[in-house]
Parts: sequence; C-alpha cells; structure tokens
Amino acid sequence: MSELQRLLREDLRGRTAYGAPQLEVPVALNTNESSYGVPADVVAAIVERVEAVAGSLNRYPDREFTTLRADLAEYLTTTTGVDVPVEQVWAGNGSNEVLQHIVQAFGGPGRIALGFTPSYSMHPIISRVAGTTWVDGLRSADPSDPAQPADRAARPAQTRFDVDTDLAVAQCREHDPHVVFLTSPNNPTGTALDLSVVEAVYEAAPDAIVVVDEAYAEFARPGTPSALTLLAGRPRLVVTRTMSKAFAFAGVRLGYLAADPELVDILRLVRMPYHLSSVTQAVACAALEHRTAMLAMVEAIKAERDRLVDGCAALGLDPVPSDANFVLVGGFDDAAATWQALLDQGVLVRDVGIAHHLRITAGTPSETDAVLAALAAVQTATPRQETA
Amino acid sequence: MSELQRLLREDLRGRTAYGAPQLEVPVALNTNESSYGVPADVVAAIVERVEAVAGSLNRYPDREFTTLRADLAEYLTTTTGVDVPVEQVWAGNGSNEVLQHIVQAFGGPGRIALGFTPSYSMHPIISRVAGTTWVDGLRSADPSDPAQPADRAARPAQTRFDVDTDLAVAQCREHDPHVVFLTSPNNPTGTALDLSVVEAVYEAAPDAIVVVDEAYAEFARPGTPSALTLLAGRPRLVVTRTMSKAFAFAGVRLGYLAADPELVDILRLVRMPYHLSSVTQAVACAALEHRTAMLAMVEAIKAERDRLVDGCAALGLDPVPSDANFVLVGGFDDAAATWQALLDQGVLVRDVGIAHHLRITAGTPSETDAVLAALAAVQTATPRQETA
Repeated sequence: MSELQRLLREDLRGRTAYGAPQLEVPVALNTNESSYGVPADVVAAIVERVEAVAGSLNRYPDREFTTLRADLAEYLTTTTGVDVPVEQVWAGNGSNEVLQHIVQAFGGPGRIALGFTPSYSMHPIISRVAGTTWVDGLRSADPSDPAQPADRAARPAQTRFDVDTDLAVAQCREHDPHVVFLTSPNNPTGTALDLSVVEAVYEAAPDAIVVVDEAYAEFARPGTPSALTLLAGRPRLVVTRTMSKAFAFAGVRLGYLAADPELVDILRLVRMPYHLSSVTQAVACAALEHRTAMLAMVEAIKAERDRLVDGCAALGLDPVPSDANFVLVGGFDDAAATWQALLDQGVLVRDVGIAHHLRITAGTPSETDAVLAALAAVQTATPRQETA
Repeated sequence: MSELQRLLREDLRGRTAYGAPQLEVPVALNTNESSYGVPADVVAAIVERVEAVAGSLNRYPDREFTTLRADLAEYLTTTTGVDVPVEQVWAGNGSNEVLQHIVQAFGGPGRIALGFTPSYSMHPIISRVAGTTWVDGLRSADPSDPAQPADRAARPAQTRFDVDTDLAVAQCREHDPHVVFLTSPNNPTGTALDLSVVEAVYEAAPDAIVVVDEAYAEFARPGTPSALTLLAGRPRLVVTRTMSKAFAFAGVRLGYLAADPELVDILRLVRMPYHLSSVTQAVACAALEHRTAMLAMVEAIKAERDRLVDGCAALGLDPVPSDANFVLVGGFDDAAATWQALLDQGVLVRDVGIAHHLRITAGTPSETDAVLAALAAVQTATPRQETA
C-alpha cells in the first residue's frame, strides 16, 4: 500500500471514481444529455449576459445569487402551478452539489441514508463521501425483477422497477433513516413515482429529510404531478431539479431545489461561500429568460423516447415504460457484450450494471434510427430470461 | 427547537453561516478582491471563448478539464520555475472546493485537522463540515501577541503572528493530525512562511496531508519562495492557489492545487462528477492566456499595500508587515466600533475577530487615500495596548 493509500479514509480505499466514459463517438446516448445544441438566439443572450458581468469579475459573486433564485422560483411557479417563493429555492453547481448540501447538513457520521435501488448512482456516492451510512433499499420484492436478489419473498410488484409502497414504508421503519432518496422519474429505470409513495415514505420516516430527485420531471408523461405539490406543510420534504436535462444545459452545471425556507437557510451552514460563480449565475439567468427556446425540443425528445420503446419491443427486447429522456431496455443475454458491440458501431449507450439491461438516451430521430439499426445488427437481442 | 433543527447534525446546531457582509459602499476593502476590473481586451477574449462553447452547452463538460489543467500547469511552471506537469494539477470552484476535496479524502470522522490561528477562517469550517475534528493550534506563544491566550508560557516569537517552528512541530507531535493547514502568505495576518516551517511540519506530521495555502503568493515580497519548490519527494504535500486574488478573478471561482499525481488521482473519489462547468473552464483559460493583462496591477497593489503600512504607522497604529494584498492593522481600542465608524464614512474593511485589529485590503491609490483619511477622521486610533 502506498503512503497516500495508507492516509486515505479507510472507507474510500479500493473504491473507483465515478466515470461514465467520455468518448468521441458519432452517436452519444449514454449520459441523458439533450442531443440538441443551444439555439443561436440563446447563445447570443448568453454572450450578452457574460459580457455584462465580465468586466467586474474581479469582485466576488452575489453569495445569495438573488436574481437567479428569483428566476428559478418564477420558473417553478409558472410551470408547475405551485407557488414557490424565492425563500424556498436553493441552487448549486449541478444537482449533485445541492444533494451534497442536504447530506452534509442532515447526514454524516453515524447517520443513515436510504435509497431504493436501482436509482441514480450518485445518491450513494454523495452519501458516503459525507460519511453517511448508505442503505441499499429494495424497490420491490418481485423475484422476477432482475435487479432484485432472487431469495426475497415473492410479492406482487405494480410494474417492473416501481417502488412498492408497503415495502418502502417497511424499510423506512426498519432503518429510521436521516435522509431518504426518492427519484421521480427514476434514473435508470425511467418511471415516475406515484405521489402516494412520497406521502407514505414521509410519514414512515419521521427523522428523515425526504428528497425527491426530479431531474427528469419535464419529460414525464401527461398527468404526472410533481412532488412540489406536496411541499406545503412538509418541512422535511425537498424536491431537486436540474437544468442539465430538459433545459439542455448540462455544460453549465446548475441544479436547484425547493424546500421549506428554514431548510434552505440551514444549507448556508455547509455550502462553500460564493459557490455559484458570477458567470454561472448570468448564464443560467439567460437560459431561464429564454426557456421557451431551451425547452422547445422536449416534446420531440419524448416522441423519440416512445419510438425507442416501440422499436426495442419490436426487436424482441424488453423496454421499461419511461417518463424520462431515456429508456431502460431489458432482454439482452450479455449486456456488457452488447454495449461493446454497439460502441464498435459508433453508438455509445450506458451499461448501468443491471443484468441484461442497457440504458439508452432519447436523442434526435436520426439517432433513434441509428441505435435501433445497431441493435438489430448486433443481433444479441434474445427473449428476456426469467432466471437472472 | 424546530423539527429541522432537531434533524440537523448535532455538531452544526447553533452555528452561524460564513458571512462577510456584502454591502454596496464607495470603498470596499473587506474581502481582498482586486479593486481593478477585468481589462477590455480580456473581456473580449472571455466573450469569444464563451461564444465558442455556448452552442454545445447541452453536453456535459470535460470531466477532466484537460485544457484548463494544462494551462494551470504551464502558468505555475512559468511563474515559479518549478516544473509542474499536468498530472500534478487539480482545480475546483474556488480554492475552498479543492481544500474541501483534500479534507473529504484525508480527513473526516475520527480524524484531526490542525491549523495555526489566526489564519483563513474557512480552514476550520471546511474541516468541520466534513466531520473532521479541528484543532486550533497556536502560531506562537508570545503572550504579548493579542491573538494568543495570555496564560501560555512566554516564548520568544520571531515576528508578531509568525509561526514558531518549534511550537508548530510540538503541536504536530501532540495531535498527530491527518491534515495540517499552513497559509503563506497568511490571511489575515499577511506574512509569508519561511519554507523551513513547512519542511519541519511535514517531518513532524507523518500521517498528515500538509496543505500550504498560497492564495496570496503572487503578492509576496521579493525573495519569498513558493512551497512548490518542496513538492519533489514529498507525496503528502499540497500547495493550493486561486485566481481570485492576484488574478483579479474572484467572480469566476477558480481555485487549484499542485501535488503528487497519486494524490490528485485520489481526489477523483470525492469530487462531484463534472464539478467544473464548460463555461468556467473556458473563462479561466481565457484569463490564463491573458495573464500579463490580468496580473498587470499586482505591483501597483503591492505599492498601495506598503503605503497602507506606512500610513497606518504614521497614524500611530500598528500594522503587521504584509506579503499579501491586505494589511492587518493593530492598535485600535475597540476594533468593532472603528469598523462601524469607517463604514459610516463609506469605507468597508474586515473585522476578523482579533482584538484591537482590523484587516484592510490594498486597492487603488484613491482607496488608500480614502481609508487613511477615514482612519484619521474616526480618531479612534490609540497606541497599541499590551494588555489584551
């Protein structure tokens, strides 16, 4: 063991860093980015805003990012119909950072974070980096679900990968967590939560901050309500969002949350001062001002997502219904081999570590054509096996 | 106690957030920013770089910020004469974030961070947020030093607020820390460290990452070597820098460090993926390309710093010699009252919590005139009292 490995925190030794491959390929459908670039008029607005602040970059940013918070509050209020005042809004360099603020304040050594696997892979990483004990909960106990251990008692699951309310409640009662992560729509499985799950988990975990990660909310199918509608009267509830997905702004790193004003105020204890640069604030405000242009492709992406579901099913594969900008597709004999075979054809998708499954981002129509053609060509698709 | 206060980490309860006042005043000399705006040609370069990346902000940033790291490595190599290859460079959203990465990897629950007070106030905050036990070490045991408890045994100090090597070594041996913070030039006292202190602390703390925070290095008086010259053969040594001070780029939030390549690689375990936005990378590279323009005012600021020292001494105050872009001034009967009286005249300085002292940033010649005139006017300056 090297001198530095000896000095590294014991619980981090032997871990490998988060690392979706960043490869130059013709068709990149692996990180749920938007395939559509920022429109020219928004580029012009961004440049104008940056020019306006660039001369005074010798000064620290507004530590309270007041204008950006107001713009985010207005965006949430307008698009969801829930009145979200500025005091309930917080932001960071990506939703990872706002999630980290939550865990740093309410998790930590001797405390427990509970999530329901498979879900966003950063939830356990963020929890562990902050010294929080991570509990890998079950979404359902359906033994036919390849993501679940086969030795659990058989129970009826609603839909593959849905969160079973009773099981979630039981796990909350068993572990008495300090932070619970729910994800709606869920990554990497794609489906949104019924809000009754959020309500039940909130009641069953009275010592927990309950986080509903809504990174993909704008892609949800019609009639899917946001957990923002549950905020009133629930001081322990947090709803996180991001500009990386529907807003097509992954390169800017702007995540945010809505929660009780007192909770937001507590996050000031753990954030680094001036964590959001003047440039980030300016650029995010420009995009929010031009939200119509930035969100213009959402419906087109949803159409491609649905076409991916249909196309994969037609190939004999087993796609999971999706409320997001990606589809989790089951039915592969050897997901890792298929991942490589697709990459050899210039199509990069994501192996999320669920046996027999791959996750495919919905992009442009030609990208859908390309990935469906590549899937047909690799011919590794086989009927879904019931034995994992 | 509110429900949320009950759920907050016990060790954070009752703490108040970091908060230098952000006030609109004619003369702002409280946060060691540069008083000089970004020159027009650099603004143009920044705008050009942002325009070049804005169209593809739908994509995640280069997670490894390869170009920026190369530019930072080249800057360090060129300006210090120490060969710093790109593998030894890491960066974050402000030096606070790179310091946080260090503490997250090598500190944490059950581990100890040691610093020598008074120093940068974020060192203990960053340590504690990561669950690390903070030990407030002494810089010297001189009982005439108002920052030190009067009941310590009298020892000869080199210069007021200098780190006493023997005492630092003794504290390392006593506490066996996992992270040691040294600051050179030190904030808020202003003086640079003799490198022999760094060498001695490194030897005396064999289980520690030794951080030398060189945020103000570019302002040091001639003949002050950087701790970068000590990196070779010391895998536990880290030197941090920032673009916020001499580079006049506080609004961009770009801090960085140089260390052993293996140590840099370990930081990938704790950083949030894509922590540096594409815009931050582009803007920082623009400033590094135009470093001559960005650093042009450093000599002028040093001249104002020296004029502040002389001017304060002429007023009967007690300034500490400085290698930074600020001066710690002693000799006030009631520092808090003087701080308010200066603010009433439109001059904002920093009360850093050291009895009888205020910290004043060196700005433009007219700002020096203004603060010296305001100090003369408030007439609260009295000869330094030996009894704290």
